[in-house]
Amino acid sequence: MLKVGIIGVGTVGTSVANILIDNKNIITARAGVEIVPHIGVVSNLDKKRDVSIKLTTDINEVLEDDSIDIVVELMGGIEKPYEIVKRALENGKAVVTANKALLAYHRYELQELASDTPFEFEAAVAGGIPIINALRDGLSANNIKSIQGIMNGTCNFMLTKMINEGASYDQILKEAQELGYAEADPTFDVGGFDTAHKLLILGSIAYGIDVKPEEILIEGIQNISKIDIEFAKEFEYNIKLLGIAKKVGNEIELRVHPVLVPLDKMIAKVDGVMNGVSVVGDKVGETMYYGAGAGGDATASAVIANIIDIARRGKGSPMLGFEKQVGTQPTLMAKDDIKTKYYLRLEVADKSGTLAKVAKIFGDNDISIENMMQKSLKREKANLLLTTHTCVEKDIKKAIDELEHSKVVLTKPAMIRIED
Amino acid sequence: MLKVGIIGVGTVGTSVANILIDNKNIITARAGVEIVPHIGVVSNLDKKRDVSIKLTTDINEVLEDDSIDIVVELMGGIEKPYEIVKRALENGKAVVTANKALLAYHRYELQELASDTPFEFEAAVAGGIPIINALRDGLSANNIKSIQGIMNGTCNFMLTKMINEGASYDQILKEAQELGYAEADPTFDVGGFDTAHKLLILGSIAYGIDVKPEEILIEGIQNISKIDIEFAKEFEYNIKLLGIAKKVGNEIELRVHPVLVPLDKMIAKVDGVMNGVSVVGDKVGETMYYGAGAGGDATASAVIANIIDIARRGKGSPMLGFEKQVGTQPTLMAKDDIKTKYYLRLEVADKSGTLAKVAKIFGDNDISIENMMQKSLKREKANLLLTTHTCVEKDIKKAIDELEHSKVVLTKPAMIRIED
Repeated sequence: MLKVGIIGVGTVGTSVANILIDNKNIITARAGVEIVPHIGVVSNLDKKRDVSIKLTTDINEVLEDDSIDIVVELMGGIEKPYEIVKRALENGKAVVTANKALLAYHRYELQELASDTPFEFEAAVAGGIPIINALRDGLSANNIKSIQGIMNGTCNFMLTKMINEGASYDQILKEAQELGYAEADPTFDVGGFDTAHKLLILGSIAYGIDVKPEEILIEGIQNISKIDIEFAKEFEYNIKLLGIAKKVGNEIELRVHPVLVPLDKMIAKVDGVMNGVSVVGDKVGETMYYGAGAGGDATASAVIANIIDIARRGKGSPMLGFEKQVGTQPTLMAKDDIKTKYYLRLEVADKSGTLAKVAKIFGDNDISIENMMQKSLKREKANLLLTTHTCVEKDIKKAIDELEHSKVVLTKPAMIRIED
Repeated sequence: MLKVGIIGVGTVGTSVANILIDNKNIITARAGVEIVPHIGVVSNLDKKRDVSIKLTTDINEVLEDDSIDIVVELMGGIEKPYEIVKRALENGKAVVTANKALLAYHRYELQELASDTPFEFEAAVAGGIPIINALRDGLSANNIKSIQGIMNGTCNFMLTKMINEGASYDQILKEAQELGYAEADPTFDVGGFDTAHKLLILGSIAYGIDVKPEEILIEGIQNISKIDIEFAKEFEYNIKLLGIAKKVGNEIELRVHPVLVPLDKMIAKVDGVMNGVSVVGDKVGETMYYGAGAGGDATASAVIANIIDIARRGKGSPMLGFEKQVGTQPTLMAKDDIKTKYYLRLEVADKSGTLAKVAKIFGDNDISIENMMQKSLKREKANLLLTTHTCVEKDIKKAIDELEHSKVVLTKPAMIRIED
């Protein structure tokens, strides 16, 4: 028998406790041993919870109880869970967490602390999809060329709705909040930060790269407008908020932003609240993983998979996928050096000379245009919709700045990166 | 250092040897130890092969060499590799195989033989997709409700072409043969047998059920006609050859046949030679896994992932996913008892009384019609296209038999099952 202590008994913690009981037969058959949810630590004992396990407010009833084998950390936050998890590991307890923020900031310290003790975190990325498992174990023969992940269900729900219904960002955000898919303050989700935390975890497993969220390019979906959505549809793109990791030479790109993705790519087909992660390996080619990225039961499915792994084999694969360093340590590519294709929308004065001026700014900045379309607007204005060939982020940023301050471009240009 | 002996140095064996050399740095970093392809066993030393490892025709140079840690079996066949793998395990060597036929027939004996020794087979199902890994480890907290797998690239290539180009089975088979996607005798692929072998492996991991290919329902794609393809398009279905495993009460359905799948399902979006496996767990909901199901490098990616797993942790998860039996052992559902929805095409005499006669046969057999469409043909004939509500296989079979022998139905009715 293995005894589990759950720290934080909210939606996911409740599911963990209940599934261990509901699915006891299949879990025992697969793990070879009964796994018992022994106790849950909560901050408020009066709150009604749908669990039958013993609850306490005293964390020492988990950390200092020698009979507890596995600590499941589901409290959220960064520094407090870090201290708690550290104590659990020091006390020889295996740890399972779903806490992506904890890992985004402390994964390498935790790897040190957990060198002899199991520490698992499948649920921290893309909820119920076993993507850590796939990337760390299933694709281990490959140099990973790139990862593209839809890892935030709130954003994907909103973008899918915007595309399908032609609705505005504000309308759909309100709807997502009413449905409980978005928080009252939605910034963490729509701003791309949640995706960034998950991306850094995948980046470590793919490339062994240690960076913090503050170091990478993060842009959210707040500025996607209806006209960009229309363009996307017309040119057979979907719009997705992607976390992207890519190896170019010895540098690693890590970035989160909205992307125009051609409709025939598998990742473009992941709609609604669902998550999907596409991984391209140098030998296996593209593989894609799809499923529920959030929700109590789906997330608990991943947490319990980790518990079963620990029951089966104790300390399994190296926490972040590498047993040791071989070859040169890759470095993070500077944001300005990223190369990709871009979609731009420029609201311009509809008069002679405008196009020449715009074209000159692109030419001066080494930007080559792939497609261009002009759509007239009212009052002698027009929208210029452009896509570029591959160019450098720093050049496009400079061109946008020059365009914005030129007399022919009337409002701040809109820009969405294209990955195809 | 771990030394690998490869038995069978064809396309996949060549890739295994070459990737272990090409990707030595990343593999050593992930495995923690260098993995060396030491020797390959072939039947013909004169054949030109693109490998730099030592080759021999003497299998004892692998099986009796104490310095060899891991045997990779890639020779194909059933009984001969079974004897060889058995000897390797008896000599204490870990075994990795991509041989689905071996597992379709001998997986439970092999599980006994490998109780203390690693025996892995990720590459045997869906090539480079780590589906064994996902099902055995990633989804282990779940009672598996169903699996639907596109696991034969030849069939999926052909069906995709037929749908996209409206071409006939014979035309596309010829094209697939010219492209090297189909064998001169394509029966093993197009007849569904290859898919069945893979399905039985997944069935064991999901449900612990021990059956042989001969016991399950297997139908191929040979009878899909252009008019069925047109119907599929018109009613927003895709046609896929699926391996299906499903739990109903304590019985397990295992079946392989062409399926009409609604276009909005993820599995319907897996096109061309690619493979995809959808798994529904009672807690995680639907997850889907996509990638290359064949090809030397993709298959070798899975073989080497297993080798790295063995280097990292020796004997890992239980070979077929269960450490022991808990609860009742499920049994195979009889073919006649399967319940699903059906599409039928009846070529009928276009005259009064036909419909009444057809309708009576359905009614007499407890089959309720969901949709019906009549398309006139030349010479006073018509095609009746029907879909049924969920009904029982034995009833539909009986109805088809009665229809075929009725005077109003002119040719053998076409039937395709529907899963939605």
